[in-house]
Amino acid sequence: MWEEKNKKLYRAFEFKDFREAFAFMTKVALIAEKMDHHPYWTNVYNKVEIFLSTHDAGDIVTTKDEAMAKAIDKLL
Amino acid sequence: MWEEKNKKLYRAFEFKDFREAFAFMTKVALIAEKMDHHPYWTNVYNKVEIFLSTHDAGDIVTTKDEAMAKAIDKLL
Amino acid sequence: MWEEKNKKLYRAFEFKDFREAFAFMTKVALIAEKMDHHPYWTNVYNKVEIFLSTHDAGDIVTTKDEAMAKAIDKLL
Amino acid sequence: MWEEKNKKLYRAFEFKDFREAFAFMTKVALIAEKMDHHPYWTNVYNKVEIFLSTHDAGDIVTTKDEAMAKAIDKLL
Repeated sequence: MWEEKNKKLYRAFEFKDFREAFAFMTKVALIAEKMDHHPYWTNVYNKVEIFLSTHDAGDIVTTKDEAMAKAIDKLL
Repeated sequence: MWEEKNKKLYRAFEFKDFREAFAFMTKVALIAEKMDHHPYWTNVYNKVEIFLSTHDAGDIVTTKDEAMAKAIDKLL
Repeated sequence: MWEEKNKKLYRAFEFKDFREAFAFMTKVALIAEKMDHHPYWTNVYNKVEIFLSTHDAGDIVTTKDEAMAKAIDKLL
Repeated sequence: MWEEKNKKLYRAFEFKDFREAFAFMTKVALIAEKMDHHPYWTNVYNKVEIFLSTHDAGDIVTTKDEAMAKAIDKLL
C-alpha cells in the first residue's frame, strides 16, 4: 500500500470521521516520538497522508522509514 | 457494561497497550469538549476508567451522562 | 499573521520540538471538532501549517474560518 | 512540588481549561511511551494528578520515576 514517490514512502489513509483520523494520528505520534523519526503528514477531516524519508541521510528512503511504515501498518 | 456507583456512571476499559488506550482517550476528549461535559477518568498503561456525573446538577447521573456513555460506547 | 493564499487563510507555526507541535495540534483538534470545522494542515517535527477554508461555501474563506483563526491564535 | 505518598511520587497540576489539560497529557503520553514508563494519572476538566512508581521494582519509587518527574516538570 505504501509507494515510493519523489524519494519518499507515501501512503494515504481514510477513516470514518475526524475523531478516528486524529486518534490514528495520536498513535502515529507516539510511535514517531519513540523512534525519534517524525513524518511529514497532512490531514483534512477523515483523510491522512503520510510521507516518510530520512532527513539525516539526505532525504531519501532508508530502513528507518521502512520500519516506521511497518509499525504504522500494524495500527490498522 | 456501565454501572451506577456512588452516584456516578462507571465503566472500565482495557486495551492492547498504552497507545490504543491513549488513542481512545483522545477520542473521548474530542467528544467531551464537543458536549462540554468532561469526565473524571483514570489511566494506567492499557487501562482506562471513566466516571460520569453532572456537576451542575449536584454531582448526580443525568441524561447528559447517559448520552455521553452511549457516545463512548459507539467508539468501541 | 494569517494571510489569504489561493482562497485559503494560511498560517505557519513553529515550536520547540515535536511534542510541543503535537500538543498544539491536539488543542486545534479539540477546537475543530467543537466548531465542526476541520482544517487542512501539515506537520513535520516542530512545524505546523494550517489552511482554512469553508468547503460548504465552495472552498472560500468565510467568517467561520476567521472565527477559527482567532480561536487558534488564542492558544499561543 | 512532587511529594512521596504511599510509595508513589505524586503531583497535582491545574490548567486554564480542559484543552490545556489534555494537551499537557498528550505531551506526558509522548514522554511516557518514549521512556516505556507509564504513569497512573487522573483528570477532570482542568485538573491532572500524576502518580509515579515502578511496577517492575515492586511498586516503589525508583530513579526511573524521578527522571520522569523531571521530564514532566520541564514541560511547564
